[in-house]
Order: sequence, then C-alpha cells, then structure tokens
Amino acid sequence: MTHHVATPGRLEAFSDGVIAVIITIMVLELKVPTQNGLDGLRAVLPTLCLYLISFAFTGIYWINHHHLVHRTEEADELILWANLGFLFCLSLLPFFTSYVLEKKMDSFSVAIYVASMVVTGFSFLLLRLAIGRRLRHAGKLDAEDTAVQRKNYLSLFVYLVAIPLAFQHPRVSLGLVAFVTIVWITPTTGIKPREEHPPHNRI
Amino acid sequence: MTHHVATPGRLEAFSDGVIAVIITIMVLELKVPTQNGLDGLRAVLPTLCLYLISFAFTGIYWINHHHLVHRTEEADELILWANLGFLFCLSLLPFFTSYVLEKKMDSFSVAIYVASMVVTGFSFLLLRLAIGRRLRHAGKLDAEDTAVQRKNYLSLFVYLVAIPLAFQHPRVSLGLVAFVTIVWITPTTGIKPREEHPPHNRI
Amino acid sequence: MTHHVATPGRLEAFSDGVIAVIITIMVLELKVPTQNGLDGLRAVLPTLCLYLISFAFTGIYWINHHHLVHRTEEADELILWANLGFLFCLSLLPFFTSYVLEKKMDSFSVAIYVASMVVTGFSFLLLRLAIGRRLRHAGKLDAEDTAVQRKNYLSLFVYLVAIPLAFQHPRVSLGLVAFVTIVWITPTTGIKPREEHPPHNRI
Amino acid sequence: MTHHVATPGRLEAFSDGVIAVIITIMVLELKVPTQNGLDGLRAVLPTLCLYLISFAFTGIYWINHHHLVHRTEEADELILWANLGFLFCLSLLPFFTSYVLEKKMDSFSVAIYVASMVVTGFSFLLLRLAIGRRLRHAGKLDAEDTAVQRKNYLSLFVYLVAIPLAFQHPRVSLGLVAFVTIVWITPTTGIKPREEHPPHNRI
Repeated sequence: MTHHVATPGRLEAFSDGVIAVIITIMVLELKVPTQNGLDGLRAVLPTLCLYLISFAFTGIYWINHHHLVHRTEEADELILWANLGFLFCLSLLPFFTSYVLEKKMDSFSVAIYVASMVVTGFSFLLLRLAIGRRLRHAGKLDAEDTAVQRKNYLSLFVYLVAIPLAFQHPRVSLGLVAFVTIVWITPTTGIKPREEHPPHNRI
Repeated sequence: MTHHVATPGRLEAFSDGVIAVIITIMVLELKVPTQNGLDGLRAVLPTLCLYLISFAFTGIYWINHHHLVHRTEEADELILWANLGFLFCLSLLPFFTSYVLEKKMDSFSVAIYVASMVVTGFSFLLLRLAIGRRLRHAGKLDAEDTAVQRKNYLSLFVYLVAIPLAFQHPRVSLGLVAFVTIVWITPTTGIKPREEHPPHNRI
Repeated sequence: MTHHVATPGRLEAFSDGVIAVIITIMVLELKVPTQNGLDGLRAVLPTLCLYLISFAFTGIYWINHHHLVHRTEEADELILWANLGFLFCLSLLPFFTSYVLEKKMDSFSVAIYVASMVVTGFSFLLLRLAIGRRLRHAGKLDAEDTAVQRKNYLSLFVYLVAIPLAFQHPRVSLGLVAFVTIVWITPTTGIKPREEHPPHNRI
Repeated sequence: MTHHVATPGRLEAFSDGVIAVIITIMVLELKVPTQNGLDGLRAVLPTLCLYLISFAFTGIYWINHHHLVHRTEEADELILWANLGFLFCLSLLPFFTSYVLEKKMDSFSVAIYVASMVVTGFSFLLLRLAIGRRLRHAGKLDAEDTAVQRKNYLSLFVYLVAIPLAFQHPRVSLGLVAFVTIVWITPTTGIKPREEHPPHNRI
C-alpha cells in the first residue's frame, strides 16, 4: 500500500500537458511576413502547411497515446521512462519544424525533420512494447493491437524511405510524410462506438 | 471492453490544456514600447485592446466548447478529428493577432484576422454537427441547441460582413467583431442555475 | 438535466492551466546577461528578484483562487466571466514584469506594474463577490470569509499607496508590494489541518 | 467542513501543469544553426545534449514529485509553500540552460547551472521534509522513504562536488551531473509492481 507507481491517469495528465504545450508553441515559430497584403499571405503559406503537418502529426500521436495508455492499469518504471523518452522526441518537433522553415525547406533540413519523426515513431514503438508486455500479461492484447502495431512498422518504413527522397525532392518527401501520417497512424480498425460505463467515473 | 474511444473528460482535459496555452502565449506578442512614461503606455494601448479581443474570443470558445463537449457520453473518431481541426484553427489566433499588430492594423491584416475567426467559427460548427449527430441519436437535443446554433450561424454571417468592411474601415471592422463576439456567442438562453448532482462526481 | 453550467472542477482545471502557463512563461523574459562570470550573475540579480515577486504574486493568487472556487457547487455565467476577467488581468503580469525590466525599474514602469497588480486584485474581488453571493445563498459564508475579504481590501489599499510612492522611490515601492503580497493575501486564518473525506473523491 | 486545504490531487494538477510547461519551453531555447547541412547539425549537437540533461532532470523530479505528493492525504500551507518554492527553483532551469548555451559552456555558466540544480534539490528536500512530517504522523513512513532520502542527500553532495569541478573541466562536470541525475534520483527501491484499487478511482 505504501509503495506505488504512477497511475495511468496521472501519466496521461502529465503527457497531455506536455503534448498540449508542444502542439501550441509551434505557432510561436510562425513569423509575420515582411511583405504587405496578399504577397505576405502567399509568402507565409508554405509555413502554414508545414505547421499543419506538425500539428496533425502531434495530434495523431496524442490520439494513439491516449488509446494505448488508457488500458494499462498501472504504470511501472519502464513505462514511465519510455513515456518520458517519447515526450522528449516529440518535444523536438517544434525545433525541427523551425529548422525546416529557416533553411527554406532545403533537402538536408527536410531529411532531418523526417528523421526526427522516425525517431519519435521508434520511441512510441518502445512505449507500445513496454505497455504491451504488461497488457499481454493481463491477457488484454487482441487482433486490433496487432493491426495497429503493423501500421506502426509500415509507417516507420515509409518515413525511412522519405529521408533519402528528401535529398532529391524535399517537397515530395514532405507530401509523402503528410500522406502517411494521416493514413497509417489513425487507429481506425475495430473501434467500437459504445462504452458501457458512465464517463464521469473514468475521466 | 478492450476497444475504446476517448472519453469526453480526456477530450476536455487536452482541449483545456491547448486553449489555456493559446490564451496565454498571446501575451508574449505584447512588446514593451520604446518610449518612456505615459507615451509608452499610450503607444501600447491598441495592442492591449486587440489582445483583449483575442482573449475574449478564445475565452468564449472555451465556454462554448465545454458546454458542447460535456454532454456527449463518448467521443468517436469524427469528434476527435473535428476537435483537432477546431484547435488547429484556434491555435492560429496568436499568429494572426501579431500579424495585425506588426502590420499596424492595416486593412489587409485586419481582414485576414477576421477571416481566421470565420474559419475558427466554421470549424466549431463542424464540431457542433459531429457532436449534435450523436446527441440527436441519444435524444438529447432541445430548443436551446437550436437557439445556440442559430446564434452561431448569425455571428458567422456578421464576421463575413466584417471582412470586406476591413478594407474600408479596419477599426470599425474590429469593433464590430468585438461587439458580435461578446453579444452572440455567449450561451445565455435557457441556462438553469441549479444542478442536482454533487460536482465532485463529474469533475 | 440537459442545460448545465461549468462545474467548479472544470473551472479549476482551466484556470490551473492558464495560471501554470502564466507563472512559467515569465521565465522566458529572463535574458542571459552579456557580461561573463560573476558580473553577469550580479547584473541579472534584480531581474531574478522581480521574477520572484511576480512568481510569488501569481502563486498566492493560485492558492486563494483554489480556496475560493473549491467551495462553490456550480459556476454560473457571472462566475465564468468574472473568472475570465481575473485570468485576463493576471495574464498581463508577464508583460508588465518585462516592462519593468526593459525600463530598468524606472518610476513609471514600477508604477504601472503595481497598478496592474491593483487591477488584478480588483478583478479577484469581483470574482470573490460573484462566488460569495452564491455561497451566502447556500449559507456557507462564515467569519473566515469576512477576515479574508478584509485582508483583500487592505492589501488593495496598500497597493494604491505604492503607486504614487513608485514615482519617488521605485525600489521601496517594489519592496512594499513584495512585503504586502506575502503578509496579507495568504489565507492563514482558521485553516483546519484535517478533512474527513478521502481525497480521491474530490480531486 | 467550510475551511479546507488543497487536496493533493489539486496540488498535483497544478504542479503537473507547471512542470509540463517548464519541460517543454526549454525547446524554445534551441536555436537553428546558421550553417547548412551536416555542419549545422553538428553545431547544434551539444545544445541537444544539454537539453536532454535538463529534460531528464525535470522528468526525474516529476516522477519523484508524484511519488511523494500522492501519498499525502491533505496539503497544509507549509506544503503549499514548499511546493511553490520547489516549482520556482525548477522554473529557473530553462533560464540557466540557455545561460550555459549562450556562454558556450564556459566554466562559470556550468557552475551556476549545477548550482541551480543544487538549489532545486534543496527545495525538493524541504518539500520532502514538509510532507514527511505529515506522513510520520500518519505512520506512513517506511524503509523506502529512508532509502530515497539518503539518495537525495548523496546526489546533492555530488552536485556540490561538481560545482568546483566545473571551473576546471566544465564538460566533465556536466557529465557527472548527467550520470548522477539518472543513477541516484530514480526511485528504484522497493517499488511494487501491483496495486489493488482500480485506477479510475484515484486518477
């Protein structure tokens, strides 16, 4: 009774806070263009698109993170550390986003932007393994988990392809990343529309 | 039991975090004036007013968001995405606020500031539709929802009028937006002063 | 059942988020000094002291806010608006803190820094009145509330004295504010050390 | 019933918010290098390492903070103040991190960076004492607490050694800090893998 580990609720609350700050401070990187009128807006459009990609990437990880963490009944130290590692990788996204912007989307900057997404993906995979180990013990793993995990591997593979591609066609590489992020990571399989318990007990 | 969707509590907590960061980081855009004494304060007054408008706009959406999300009993994927879309649009507000400030409230900057409010309004309308669909199923929609939705349409219409107006009289346009925001979006109709359940069960 | 107002838990969560961001982003105003070694640290000391005052001011309001909001059983629209007004005033503190720093603690900047504290104090008084009205209805007001409210009036009075004082002795004025903030606003009277209910039910 | 003190849940929520902002805004200090290609990335590597140290330091304190606060059943004023003091010290970490970066890891900057960690460690010790006093009353202190407290003292001692070391070998001093942070502060002793209560009741 005296010893205890973080409850998933606490883990979620902290992760939510960190992800909420990450997803929002990226907007501080958006710089008001020097040109006036429509020219200024046009100059800022690629920036807005990149911000949208980073926002969607973070938002999708939030959904996946919630989906994953919610089912564990306790968070042991391995999970705590895997989670901190994942948050660290994700927290670098605003930095690499502004990296791409300041280097005006040149090949190298796009390559390391995508590489940082790969690293984030791997760190999330570690978190998934750390939690999965526990869920398997409790007999809570099912076909959906296998499907989601396969999607995870596949999207990581496409990211890895996008890195060398960035050196040839940085914008195509970014487009591929945007496409993959949205198509693959979303947890679409097997989500049931109803739950039995009243929501105010589980927050 | 294994599959599940985000509970509204979780959705609220994340949205609250994002909105709290949005509403607060705007203050980082306020620049200390170069003039000393009263002149400096006078130079910063329009900035403060614009910050007040953006703060009120965000605050009102927080109230409406809470009012809307709280009644759903589960958040399906459509709601999650509509919510992320709404948060994305809202997160651009600090950027467009500093846009207006750096362009010294010229016509074009005010026009796109108001336009970003229109887009945010539309994204909130989508969220309302996504949640309303579910509430209608559950038979929870009533006269108040119809009234609030009508207010939503009307305020969007006035915003649309404010965009061309900005090219003639940017300050009048901003005043109109400030007025409409406060008058129309507030959920005044039919709010009952008492609830039966003790609050600590519903957080 | 369909209509409802924000629960205090929700109000607290959002206010907590905003106050947490306010109290932390002030650290972004701290600039690394250009001098090296001890000289640099000495140059940054007044800044650190001012940051400490602003941090303590915000922290104390967090304690008072929690103390006040927790007892209400529902938050009507008046309370929601009074709360947003209070958060708006408080959110200006980082701006006025950097105002004082960039003006190198000249008289005028200290005067408006203290004036912003007075305005925040008044906005908190409004929130206290809005909530007190409701508590009085429920018969929950007692001697402690009267004592705390008196402390509130008194500290506002001392702040008002500190404004003209700033034009003569800005540092004395700041010291007075620091002293008053800590002595007066802390809710020391009548706090009981024990509660009966297990904490996990009230969060 | 009328009087009350902050519940640990509330204290945790606020502290979580502050720590989440602290841990994330440090990324704003990362500056995009002026060089292009691999040179730029190489130039930014020490910065990334320092960010990793600060991130890990903060993350570990989050784990320890949670571990400590969760067991108290109420937070009296002493605890509230000790907690605010701890958060204040921790909130200076982003400042001293950018201090080290802008001074290009010279001896003095590393020394005060480590010194700020010592101060944070002491403030956490105060919080531990304030909460421990209460836990001892309730008979909840055990062998694990003694072990963790000893680790706390030891890590503070090593930090104190690292300060003079910084004047000779700043990078060795940083490495020592990184090593100690990870080895000593982690609460490894005696953590049990299972809890009995369902997590949704304790959030």
